[in-house]
Amino acid sequence: MIRKVIITVFVFTCLLSLNAFALNGSVEGEAVSDAKYMADTLLVLIAAFLVFFMQAGFAMVESGFTRAKNAVNILMKNLMDFSMGSIAYWAIGFAIMFGTGSAFMGTSGWFVPADSTAFASLEWSSVPTHAAWLFQLVFAATAATIVSGAMAERTQFKSYLIYSVFITGIIYPIVGHWIWGGGWLANFGAGMLDFAGSTVVHSTGGWLALTGAIVLGPRLGKYDADGKPRPIAGHNLPLAALGVFILWLGWFGFNPGSQMGADAADISLIAVTTNIAAAAGAITAMITAWMFLGKPDAGMSLNGALAGLVAITAGCAFVNPVSAAIIGALGGIVVVLSVLLLERMKIDDPVGAISVHGTCGALGTILLGFFHSDQGIFFGGSFGFLGAQIVGVVAVFIWCLVTGFILFYGIKAITGLRVTEEEEQAGLDYEEHGASAYPDFNVSSIR
Amino acid sequence: MIRKVIITVFVFTCLLSLNAFALNGSVEGEAVSDAKYMADTLLVLIAAFLVFFMQAGFAMVESGFTRAKNAVNILMKNLMDFSMGSIAYWAIGFAIMFGTGSAFMGTSGWFVPADSTAFASLEWSSVPTHAAWLFQLVFAATAATIVSGAMAERTQFKSYLIYSVFITGIIYPIVGHWIWGGGWLANFGAGMLDFAGSTVVHSTGGWLALTGAIVLGPRLGKYDADGKPRPIAGHNLPLAALGVFILWLGWFGFNPGSQMGADAADISLIAVTTNIAAAAGAITAMITAWMFLGKPDAGMSLNGALAGLVAITAGCAFVNPVSAAIIGALGGIVVVLSVLLLERMKIDDPVGAISVHGTCGALGTILLGFFHSDQGIFFGGSFGFLGAQIVGVVAVFIWCLVTGFILFYGIKAITGLRVTEEEEQAGLDYEEHGASAYPDFNVSSIR
Amino acid sequence: MIRKVIITVFVFTCLLSLNAFALNGSVEGEAVSDAKYMADTLLVLIAAFLVFFMQAGFAMVESGFTRAKNAVNILMKNLMDFSMGSIAYWAIGFAIMFGTGSAFMGTSGWFVPADSTAFASLEWSSVPTHAAWLFQLVFAATAATIVSGAMAERTQFKSYLIYSVFITGIIYPIVGHWIWGGGWLANFGAGMLDFAGSTVVHSTGGWLALTGAIVLGPRLGKYDADGKPRPIAGHNLPLAALGVFILWLGWFGFNPGSQMGADAADISLIAVTTNIAAAAGAITAMITAWMFLGKPDAGMSLNGALAGLVAITAGCAFVNPVSAAIIGALGGIVVVLSVLLLERMKIDDPVGAISVHGTCGALGTILLGFFHSDQGIFFGGSFGFLGAQIVGVVAVFIWCLVTGFILFYGIKAITGLRVTEEEEQAGLDYEEHGASAYPDFNVSSIR
Repeated sequence: MIRKVIITVFVFTCLLSLNAFALNGSVEGEAVSDAKYMADTLLVLIAAFLVFFMQAGFAMVESGFTRAKNAVNILMKNLMDFSMGSIAYWAIGFAIMFGTGSAFMGTSGWFVPADSTAFASLEWSSVPTHAAWLFQLVFAATAATIVSGAMAERTQFKSYLIYSVFITGIIYPIVGHWIWGGGWLANFGAGMLDFAGSTVVHSTGGWLALTGAIVLGPRLGKYDADGKPRPIAGHNLPLAALGVFILWLGWFGFNPGSQMGADAADISLIAVTTNIAAAAGAITAMITAWMFLGKPDAGMSLNGALAGLVAITAGCAFVNPVSAAIIGALGGIVVVLSVLLLERMKIDDPVGAISVHGTCGALGTILLGFFHSDQGIFFGGSFGFLGAQIVGVVAVFIWCLVTGFILFYGIKAITGLRVTEEEEQAGLDYEEHGASAYPDFNVSSIR
Repeated sequence: MIRKVIITVFVFTCLLSLNAFALNGSVEGEAVSDAKYMADTLLVLIAAFLVFFMQAGFAMVESGFTRAKNAVNILMKNLMDFSMGSIAYWAIGFAIMFGTGSAFMGTSGWFVPADSTAFASLEWSSVPTHAAWLFQLVFAATAATIVSGAMAERTQFKSYLIYSVFITGIIYPIVGHWIWGGGWLANFGAGMLDFAGSTVVHSTGGWLALTGAIVLGPRLGKYDADGKPRPIAGHNLPLAALGVFILWLGWFGFNPGSQMGADAADISLIAVTTNIAAAAGAITAMITAWMFLGKPDAGMSLNGALAGLVAITAGCAFVNPVSAAIIGALGGIVVVLSVLLLERMKIDDPVGAISVHGTCGALGTILLGFFHSDQGIFFGGSFGFLGAQIVGVVAVFIWCLVTGFILFYGIKAITGLRVTEEEEQAGLDYEEHGASAYPDFNVSSIR
Repeated sequence: MIRKVIITVFVFTCLLSLNAFALNGSVEGEAVSDAKYMADTLLVLIAAFLVFFMQAGFAMVESGFTRAKNAVNILMKNLMDFSMGSIAYWAIGFAIMFGTGSAFMGTSGWFVPADSTAFASLEWSSVPTHAAWLFQLVFAATAATIVSGAMAERTQFKSYLIYSVFITGIIYPIVGHWIWGGGWLANFGAGMLDFAGSTVVHSTGGWLALTGAIVLGPRLGKYDADGKPRPIAGHNLPLAALGVFILWLGWFGFNPGSQMGADAADISLIAVTTNIAAAAGAITAMITAWMFLGKPDAGMSLNGALAGLVAITAGCAFVNPVSAAIIGALGGIVVVLSVLLLERMKIDDPVGAISVHGTCGALGTILLGFFHSDQGIFFGGSFGFLGAQIVGVVAVFIWCLVTGFILFYGIKAITGLRVTEEEEQAGLDYEEHGASAYPDFNVSSIR
């Protein structure tokens, strides 16, 4: 089975590669010396590097928030989703997202040719196509990696390889086309706005994670005989905290970089709104957890910072700092409630990915309808704009639920999705990877 | 009690927010397209992102250098001081530091309005006000986070929340106003110079840490019955080493970014002097520790790199690389002696923060009086300049001691500062946060 | 003995410093305001900062892939090689590498004077000399740090200090002079090309590591009585994975920065080829390991990403993305085979450094002869170019083997190279540094 998958992927890649060879025969040779062109490119590339580093952040958060016996597995998933995603998003993803095509998807620009005529919807970009691709790739990989958190500690490794290709190569790029690639949502009514991807990236990842978690079912031992949830604490809080700081850093690429051009005042504002929302989210999540759980819970506070970041992502360029603080603060409150609610609904999300990215992504996108400095309800805007935001959120939710269930039930039927009970009990590291994350330590495996 | 604090902070924030709403009603709309403006802004923002990442460095250093049973607590402190600090420095700190006002403090520009007329002392800055704010915020947060290291393993979490707001919002900004905001020290005699904050940021943090450590008293078990100090090793050297590398990286934002403008030759020199001082500090600290302790101690060597960085911060733009090597080397020697001396004086600083930031910050500021390439004694300068440096160091020392003792004795009297003996024995993580940093591992709590 | 070494180094440094003082008396004063100059400098400095951060990556990879009982030691080695290297490459290394001199080595520009007339071969650089130095320093330190991985867990700390100075100060700069400093290889036949250092940096580090590992011999217990290799797993996979992500991030400085100028299209292409090769290497290494070892091995997959990065480094600016994918994919396959082969040859390399950097560096340099978009065999190029690549690879291999054996046998004869059996058994941390990396944990030392 494994071999079949590998061979299929390999052959497919080879064929596409040969096809692309002709297209990519020569490297870019234009020598545009304009200072703005250069500054824009520097910004976009540096932002891309920072967002790439978010992969390390996700790897640390997801391994830190899960058990030691599954640490190798989750790290490998993070490494491989970015690697497989890099190939998939290069081969087909970018063409589907930004290629000239229909209102539903793009259909030109496979393997990202250096000349940009294939990408009519990239007219907003003043940087080389390669730079734009790299920046968009790291976003696509973010969407895919979010899913791994909610499905942690019980998913087969090879199923993971398959679904991450589908998400990065097809499901995510189609959402992206709708909103950023000149598709139907960008032109719906007043025009939906999602500056850096609260919905495009985070909600897409979060709702796909939701379907994955539902299809898988909860981890063994997550609920006792009476159906009461049992806490399963993460095994390494310092790693998780490091991961959150890395993600926060990466967001300074994620949001300002989405300007795709180095306008000084704009990117400064974006960096400020991003930071204030994160801070506010951490504070309100801490307070909310303190009230509901009796203690200033570290996991909740860390997720609160992320919730603030996710919530501000849609509007970071369009709101003032006070609005950013409010949006972030609401994100921090909502993420705690969402985590507690999902747990009660028997949807087991070991790291809180659905709440952080799905719930707070939707929240932030809708709040932009209220707080946009020109078009928001609170600033004299129309209900039409708010309506477009809500339609966008709902459309992406439906798309992800439909495609997510097809994807995960499909994998379940064909190759299987979940590991055996024995393997889950013993930990995925030994059986799936023949390794232990901490062989010098006495690690408990009976949690 | 907790609730009272929370509610007070919350109400205060709400009121200020409402007030600010009017001021911040619209986002920045100017479209300045000048290349230098753009390059300056890129530099300052990227530098700000790197300095932000120093929060992760401090979190790793402080948790790595303390015991496993207090790891969650110190991580939470690091997360929350940046989050609370972001709000406090936005609401009032920046206005006090750079707002137009008196020689003692600024009094205009609350909540950082985008138009910069409120900030007469920002005339040196050629970047958008928002970018300048973000860059200054990450400095303010650095000062606050230094304190947490020296007070680790025995401070109540809620006391920490309170003091970090006071430091970031008031105590630090006033020092900053004196030296960088056009206050009295900037105009004292020949004019005190502290390019990137050996005194403004590091000594301020270090001396406040000193008062905190004195008011708290040493950790249980730090001194035996005869008063002899007992070593309490940090629980995770790899994390601490990672933290130091992250801090070193962050300093490449801290120092070159303080140029606040992208002058190629200047920022190149600054990056070089910064690096050479760090390297020299690590080497001399290793040698000094080898002589005094008999082994090339890892903790001392890591702190030596930081000591070199702190010492060069005042003069990084004003000295040549050879001087930088000497300043860094002296920092590395002095930090080891300072750590040993403080330990003997019964001032318990678990991570060496007072020595690294307080002592070496003062050292570097005074050494600039000797090594400044134009004004230094060794380069034909006058004693007047050296005098101004010394006055600055002493003034900040006195200010921090006075305000620090008021702050910490105040908190002690009103809400309590230190945890109970039982809690300290068991570790702060369980009692304060209801969590363990490493639940899958067999962690010793009897050190 | 230790004292002698220290005193010698110290006196030597002092003398050189005094000498340099005169040269470096004044800081750079030119105020060139050209936008391109500024953008180039920003690029090179930011790239240098990212490559500096690779030191943290190496520290995490090397400590993660070795045993807990040697973690402090390997971290100290990483800290000190960069620190000693900073001084050595400043005092003599940069002058040997880029100073005006013969075809063999440069002989002017000791202590990096700010005016660049000493560096005729830096004419390609449009940035301040200080920026160029910092960028080159972090490369030199990379070459030195590679060696520590292969020699981990059995080398004396003081021997390490000595050899890292020789590598950074002399052996590496001479290779660099040959290829990048206008030396004989740059002008050999069609002219050897090694854009960012597959050979200059990585093979040099890898082949020196090979000699070190041979002179040391394998770790105790690596081979059983019949000579069969025994796996010795690394003690902390999450740290190793974090390290690989940090290295991948750093490579976005390593490769695009090597352009030494901010040409938008070029650096965008370089970033893309770099990323695609890394992704392809991770995938093929995973598949190769899966076939040979039966499991998707995490260590091999992580090293596969690095192998792809090393392999593309020579040609990242000269090949198209499809070629990059193929080069990276071959790197991922070859690294696994190389690791297995070396293990069978009784060359014990705890972290796989020889295979990743030595083997794949050579591989990538030779593959450029086939895939260069203009001069490669597959694109109608001549065999002369391929020949120059092969000559370069062989010349560097011979140089490193000769100097490496002289260096390591010399140290072995004079101060000793390897720790005692007892010390190795107990772990280097206690005996060499008087510390444990994880004092709160129950760490096994009998692996």
